[in-house]
Amino acid sequence: MPNRPLILITNDDGFEASGLAALVEAAKDFGEVVVISPDGHRSGMGHAITMSVPLRVKHYKTENGIEYYRTNGTSVDCVKLGQRVVLRGRKIDLVLSGVNHGSNSSVSIIYSGTMAAAIEASFEGLPAIGFSLLDYSPKADFSAAVVYAKQIIKNVLKDGLPKHVCLNVNIPKLPFAEIKGIKITRQTLGYWYEDLEEHTDPFGGKYYWLAGHLENLEPEADDTCEWALHNGYVSVMPVHFDMTSHKTINDLKHWEHD
Amino acid sequence: MPNRPLILITNDDGFEASGLAALVEAAKDFGEVVVISPDGHRSGMGHAITMSVPLRVKHYKTENGIEYYRTNGTSVDCVKLGQRVVLRGRKIDLVLSGVNHGSNSSVSIIYSGTMAAAIEASFEGLPAIGFSLLDYSPKADFSAAVVYAKQIIKNVLKDGLPKHVCLNVNIPKLPFAEIKGIKITRQTLGYWYEDLEEHTDPFGGKYYWLAGHLENLEPEADDTCEWALHNGYVSVMPVHFDMTSHKTINDLKHWEHD
Repeated sequence: MPNRPLILITNDDGFEASGLAALVEAAKDFGEVVVISPDGHRSGMGHAITMSVPLRVKHYKTENGIEYYRTNGTSVDCVKLGQRVVLRGRKIDLVLSGVNHGSNSSVSIIYSGTMAAAIEASFEGLPAIGFSLLDYSPKADFSAAVVYAKQIIKNVLKDGLPKHVCLNVNIPKLPFAEIKGIKITRQTLGYWYEDLEEHTDPFGGKYYWLAGHLENLEPEADDTCEWALHNGYVSVMPVHFDMTSHKTINDLKHWEHD
Repeated sequence: MPNRPLILITNDDGFEASGLAALVEAAKDFGEVVVISPDGHRSGMGHAITMSVPLRVKHYKTENGIEYYRTNGTSVDCVKLGQRVVLRGRKIDLVLSGVNHGSNSSVSIIYSGTMAAAIEASFEGLPAIGFSLLDYSPKADFSAAVVYAKQIIKNVLKDGLPKHVCLNVNIPKLPFAEIKGIKITRQTLGYWYEDLEEHTDPFGGKYYWLAGHLENLEPEADDTCEWALHNGYVSVMPVHFDMTSHKTINDLKHWEHD
């Protein structure tokens, strides 16, 4: 089967995460699947890369015709190592990341290692999709996520994606029968607010934990990722990596002549 | 002086970096300056936050009326701790990050801890600027950077910035007299290509270092950050954090009914 798509899968929850197994399950019938994932948890790492220590890649199993590798790097490092080392010289047709244990809606996309891997792939024009389920539990039920991931992978392999665009797919924590379908969404304007509680260690030192909640700054809008998820839809958000605020450029032009 | 602007400064190169001292030098006459920076290097960490260990904040010096704190966190953690702990309850007028040792043009903005701090501040609507000098040397000459940082800080304190917009300022590695001025730019389409060279350790294990170069995918365009820097200008790019590819939304709408 020389025309089977070549699919690279990674994640940020590490090689043992059940979300990774769910994504392999969703993708395995669509082509040749190769998995390269971090050797442990890399959540909240954003678009981090590893520059202070050398990167290592270890092949650790072959299962049902799928090759599995793990690395000491981040999810972004996995995409680089997948392209440049493991699949060197081969054309990758699709990069998948996840399924993340927990939401990556709104600004969480920017903290997310799952989405960073998809965005990294899109830099060079590879079609890519990041998947997240709104359930932090290591034992989350990924069955609905697998059904929707299959449908979205099929759509992307059939239609393609615009060059340098990837997808941020979030799946509500609901049984399949209660999910109403797919909504194409935009990023909700919001931020994470942490009421940093002060703790004291046994030696009298003060410390803080980062934990908080998402403040939705546009709760009425019905075209956002947050709206879709709160209303029982799978949110599919097209993502680009141009962070220019184009509409501000003209406002600042006079600085060139000050 | 009750109306002096309150300015929070951070960076990702750590509290001992000379780029941080340069930014303090540029900002100190514009208001009350408070510095909170990582206790070591955090480059290439993207928008990473610290969730696996508790965060600590240590006041380590007062110098020329400026309070200095350091933390075990990332640059993004510094912005959160600055707002929620060190300056709790006070209105911050401006967040500054840098001066980074090395460029944050093109997609480097997405790997950059310096810019992540500015972007984090913009989530809640604080005006913010990240500064980077195109010189990786710890002993880089920041004198031209200080002059331009002063001018840009002055402009932002006078005019403000649109809510949720921050600035990515990159300064070429040139003597002040050879810099032609400021250009307002957009993010260059490009990606980092690493030709991951294989090394072998004394025990026969293989390893790789992430090192490469920026591939500029639009070298002819004369409105990009890369063009400005290569032509001797300071690049000032307005940044927003909406990663939605708005122009792709309609192309995918039919998926809602498949």
